[in-house]
Amino acid sequence: MTALERWGPADRGGLTPVDGGITAVAGLRAGGVVTGVKESGMPDLALVVADRAATFGAVTTQNVVKAPSALRTDRIAATGSARAILVNSGNANVATPKAYDDTDRMAAATAATLGIDADDVVVMSTGVIGVPLPIEQVERGIPALVEDLSSDGGPRAATAMMTTDSHAKQVAFRVQDSGGVCTVAGMAKGVGMIAPNMATLLVVVATDAPMPAALVRQLVRKAVAVTFNRITVDGDQSTSDQCVLVATGTATQPPALEAVARAVHAVCADLALAVIADGEGASRVAAITASGARSDEDAVAIARAIATSSLVRAAIHGADPNWGRIMMAMGNAGIAFEPSRVQVVCAGHTVARFGVATSFDRARAAIAMAADQVAIEVDLGVGRGTATVLTCDLSEDYVTFNSEYTT
Amino acid sequence: MTALERWGPADRGGLTPVDGGITAVAGLRAGGVVTGVKESGMPDLALVVADRAATFGAVTTQNVVKAPSALRTDRIAATGSARAILVNSGNANVATPKAYDDTDRMAAATAATLGIDADDVVVMSTGVIGVPLPIEQVERGIPALVEDLSSDGGPRAATAMMTTDSHAKQVAFRVQDSGGVCTVAGMAKGVGMIAPNMATLLVVVATDAPMPAALVRQLVRKAVAVTFNRITVDGDQSTSDQCVLVATGTATQPPALEAVARAVHAVCADLALAVIADGEGASRVAAITASGARSDEDAVAIARAIATSSLVRAAIHGADPNWGRIMMAMGNAGIAFEPSRVQVVCAGHTVARFGVATSFDRARAAIAMAADQVAIEVDLGVGRGTATVLTCDLSEDYVTFNSEYTT
Repeated sequence: MTALERWGPADRGGLTPVDGGITAVAGLRAGGVVTGVKESGMPDLALVVADRAATFGAVTTQNVVKAPSALRTDRIAATGSARAILVNSGNANVATPKAYDDTDRMAAATAATLGIDADDVVVMSTGVIGVPLPIEQVERGIPALVEDLSSDGGPRAATAMMTTDSHAKQVAFRVQDSGGVCTVAGMAKGVGMIAPNMATLLVVVATDAPMPAALVRQLVRKAVAVTFNRITVDGDQSTSDQCVLVATGTATQPPALEAVARAVHAVCADLALAVIADGEGASRVAAITASGARSDEDAVAIARAIATSSLVRAAIHGADPNWGRIMMAMGNAGIAFEPSRVQVVCAGHTVARFGVATSFDRARAAIAMAADQVAIEVDLGVGRGTATVLTCDLSEDYVTFNSEYTT
Repeated sequence: MTALERWGPADRGGLTPVDGGITAVAGLRAGGVVTGVKESGMPDLALVVADRAATFGAVTTQNVVKAPSALRTDRIAATGSARAILVNSGNANVATPKAYDDTDRMAAATAATLGIDADDVVVMSTGVIGVPLPIEQVERGIPALVEDLSSDGGPRAATAMMTTDSHAKQVAFRVQDSGGVCTVAGMAKGVGMIAPNMATLLVVVATDAPMPAALVRQLVRKAVAVTFNRITVDGDQSTSDQCVLVATGTATQPPALEAVARAVHAVCADLALAVIADGEGASRVAAITASGARSDEDAVAIARAIATSSLVRAAIHGADPNWGRIMMAMGNAGIAFEPSRVQVVCAGHTVARFGVATSFDRARAAIAMAADQVAIEVDLGVGRGTATVLTCDLSEDYVTFNSEYTT
């Protein structure tokens, strides 16, 4: 059992990893091109297109300051249907006077080139903020992008949505049960700590399983709640975060809904882990599990308080089984509990029991905590609520990356 | 006008700084000695004693995990009366099986030596946690500590309560109005980021102005609410935080209550600033002011969200007028506002207006932000609510101090 055993669906039966990224899903084409938005000359515009109208759902940022792209996605999600998802990277198209117009212009140009309705084009944007998007340049790139679309273009699209990611993040599963078969796949960028500005998280998940829009909406919300909403780098949420789910409906004999839901959960869990592991400055992933809480909600609050504590995350960086900081962070979660019932386990070593230190072997515990993936487990001893939140360590590099002066 | 113009009482008329620390207050004696708890051999035990019964009030940590010393202070504060405050540093006496007993033993030994009731002895503790306190050693030091008491011992007490503080923190004011005169003084230790464990904040404030216990309680709560509760280093609150107020009542012709209240506010504000400025790894203090909010409570939430954002604090470290991160942090405060009304001013430079970037001079703004004290001001443009929260920058040194493995 690994440090991350509780992360993602407990049962992955019937899920087989496959290649191809998002285009492993039948009925989708994808591509990615360079329009010149990034100084690096890397690909900066990605497109995923469904051959036919697909059902569509989305979860977007809860930040009060919300990007035009996220607001547009909310409007399209309300209709429950979409055909294309355009992702531009390198410029978040936020907080400039023409940001709203430019979002609509990107959608309109894409729709015109594809010969579809602009209301069916979702837009996602990530990159620097407050800098006007070179919209003509982006518009000029769209014909080439449509030209680039192909049924094996998933990896190119995943690459074109990257900003400071060290590699493209994509995952795909073949899903099979006694009733049938389908595919669920996804790609993501972020979150790390994005220089020079915000840590946008963008996720596209797709399946060929047919399902009504209401179900798509429900599946993406449920999956995000236990995956992307349970990871944290610094507690900050970008203005542009989006996770969307597209169902092409091309699978003629799909498996049971429950298997599809587990696959969506697994895709989101694996992408969320990839995002945390790729955090700039992060040297290890920590899975914080709270159990024995009165409810799962209490467990989430406790695990999140530990995962967002700078002092705890600095201790994880130092491979320090610092249960005192863990207890302190728990006590700040706003959840009532009895300290004298608390047990704390760091990387398999029980370091506190009944709220006081055990005579654990500090040197051995420190060695265990120096692994790439570390489990920290706290038990409140009062109920059956449990939850896991992923975070990464707080390193000097995090500060360096985020304090360097960059335009 | 400085970056911290809004910090502390707007009117300091009638307040004159005086020397002597806590013992500037008539009717108090104080001292500090070495009992050997600290490996460094620095003073580790402080005592403040009132010649007669004094009225007493306290604010202690809201952390669910609460130290025995803080719980004891709560009990004594409920009686409204105390005679002595014992502070031990170097060992927080928390989360060990005998921590409750040891707290009471320290109080009992102090009371016996002074010839007073143990229920009149407040205990404050700070230092490593989970390590048993060498209680006999502390008890053996108490006679020497009582011997050391004197009416000019304030500075010795302030020094003996230090842990990783770089200097003793004390402040005293003579308070005068047309009605009379009194003294208000205080000393503090913390908060910085205390290696190896928690960032305990301990504060003792005293006055010779006579006042009933109900008023003492009210004054300390009000002062803490707008000073120590509006500073943040990393959002973490220790299990042992305490701020107490003692009124000896020896001033025969005191000024009006309003003047005393302003002085208590000023003492707490100045000590809170000293604590933030002394944060380990901190290279500058930032005063985050939110104005134009619907209420002061909304303004506090907005200012606190900015002040606790790791991304904002890293930008402050880099002297980067990164208004995008500031807007993002505001948007995560849980307070509704209209981004298009927001103005952001960094170190006097208006960097965003109506929610979008101005054409500010980035190089000059960056130079202004490289000062020791920096003001960041956001205006929501919807009301008259205002609040200031102090923080320090997030530096590589913070991470280094807090990730080094130390027992």
